[in-house]
Amino acid sequence: MRVFIVSAHPEPKSFNTALRDLSIRVLGDLGHDVRVSDLYDMGFNPVADAADFNDRQNPDYLVYALEQRHGYENKTLAPDILGEIEKVLWCDLLILNFPLFWFSTPAILKGWIDRVLISGLTYGGKRFYDRGGLKGKKTMVTLTLGGRPHMLTDDGVHGRLEDMLRHLLRGTLYYTGMSVLPPFVAWHVPYISDQDRGDYLQAYEERLGQLNDLEPLAFPSLDEFDDKLNRLT
Amino acid sequence: MRVFIVSAHPEPKSFNTALRDLSIRVLGDLGHDVRVSDLYDMGFNPVADAADFNDRQNPDYLVYALEQRHGYENKTLAPDILGEIEKVLWCDLLILNFPLFWFSTPAILKGWIDRVLISGLTYGGKRFYDRGGLKGKKTMVTLTLGGRPHMLTDDGVHGRLEDMLRHLLRGTLYYTGMSVLPPFVAWHVPYISDQDRGDYLQAYEERLGQLNDLEPLAFPSLDEFDDKLNRLT
Repeated sequence: MRVFIVSAHPEPKSFNTALRDLSIRVLGDLGHDVRVSDLYDMGFNPVADAADFNDRQNPDYLVYALEQRHGYENKTLAPDILGEIEKVLWCDLLILNFPLFWFSTPAILKGWIDRVLISGLTYGGKRFYDRGGLKGKKTMVTLTLGGRPHMLTDDGVHGRLEDMLRHLLRGTLYYTGMSVLPPFVAWHVPYISDQDRGDYLQAYEERLGQLNDLEPLAFPSLDEFDDKLNRLT
Repeated sequence: MRVFIVSAHPEPKSFNTALRDLSIRVLGDLGHDVRVSDLYDMGFNPVADAADFNDRQNPDYLVYALEQRHGYENKTLAPDILGEIEKVLWCDLLILNFPLFWFSTPAILKGWIDRVLISGLTYGGKRFYDRGGLKGKKTMVTLTLGGRPHMLTDDGVHGRLEDMLRHLLRGTLYYTGMSVLPPFVAWHVPYISDQDRGDYLQAYEERLGQLNDLEPLAFPSLDEFDDKLNRLT
């Protein structure tokens, strides 16, 4: 399997980065091909703007999604975007490895999503969800957070983690057509013992050996909706 | 009322920016004091990293939230962050005005959230939700999107917009203690007529005249939970 890991933690010595480094080693040992974009290390630019397009379809008025299509067709997108798109298209599995910032990705990773998962290629019109442009690929979120598990359950103070991450798991990753594997979550990371961190590393190693056996998260199919996206009854 | 508008659209001639400009005018006419941070125009840096701290509590290992606290107490946070914090503390109402990118904010605005809504001031330990550091202030999201209303209902293909925005409305804005007014949403914006856009501008003007009468969104109170954040029965 070809695995593309996109990671985003501002501290190279963090436990989050240790999970990333473990996955590079373990996936390699398992015979997978692995490529990595460490967004902080790359100094990745997260700001979607006119500078992303070297040849504008409409120089007077920026519709970002339309220029994405035009720039991809004409190979005039910014080189850093094209480089990331090449890796997305190459991979069978995309792993996003990040610390939870405000129940979402750090901005540097949000910008990777905004700029790299381009219109026309990953989605467009009614090509989304199980008709999305990246259908056939798998994806998994690997995240660390400060909260404890009981805070993010149905009855917990924040409700379910999957509900807080709906914009990402369903609204972004599944939107592009990818099968979304269950997130790997390391809880309460700033406060736990070395022993507990070791247990998480071991659990992640086990998880990485089970990638083909994991059941993806269940989301609606577009088959449940008509051409105007009204629910079929 | 003192109103702080944070806006983030890459096209200054966009309809999204027109809503922003309308609100500046209308709120002024209504006698409110208005300040604006146009993040694209400012070239705002959205990347949370070590450069945000001019005096590190721990130079060897970056725990971003801890350095936020230290940097705020010692006034050694990066000047752009301090400038934004000053405006957040000044305001009675914070408006986030942005186009929906992947069911969330553009990365430049996510970075504003990551860097400006600092630990220790806006939240910390069990100071969140209705005990958050910004309690007493109001906030409202004003957003434009391409989708149609029927796609974001209970029965729609994406479910409710409020559920897609849970990480922002509840997990971020309410987290800091602010009262979250119902979002103002302009639907299907790239595809609608000038007449429809005019109707949205008029509806927004009406909305801005009703700010004191709007019922905030309902979220759990920490009074429903014990000291360990287990739900009281």
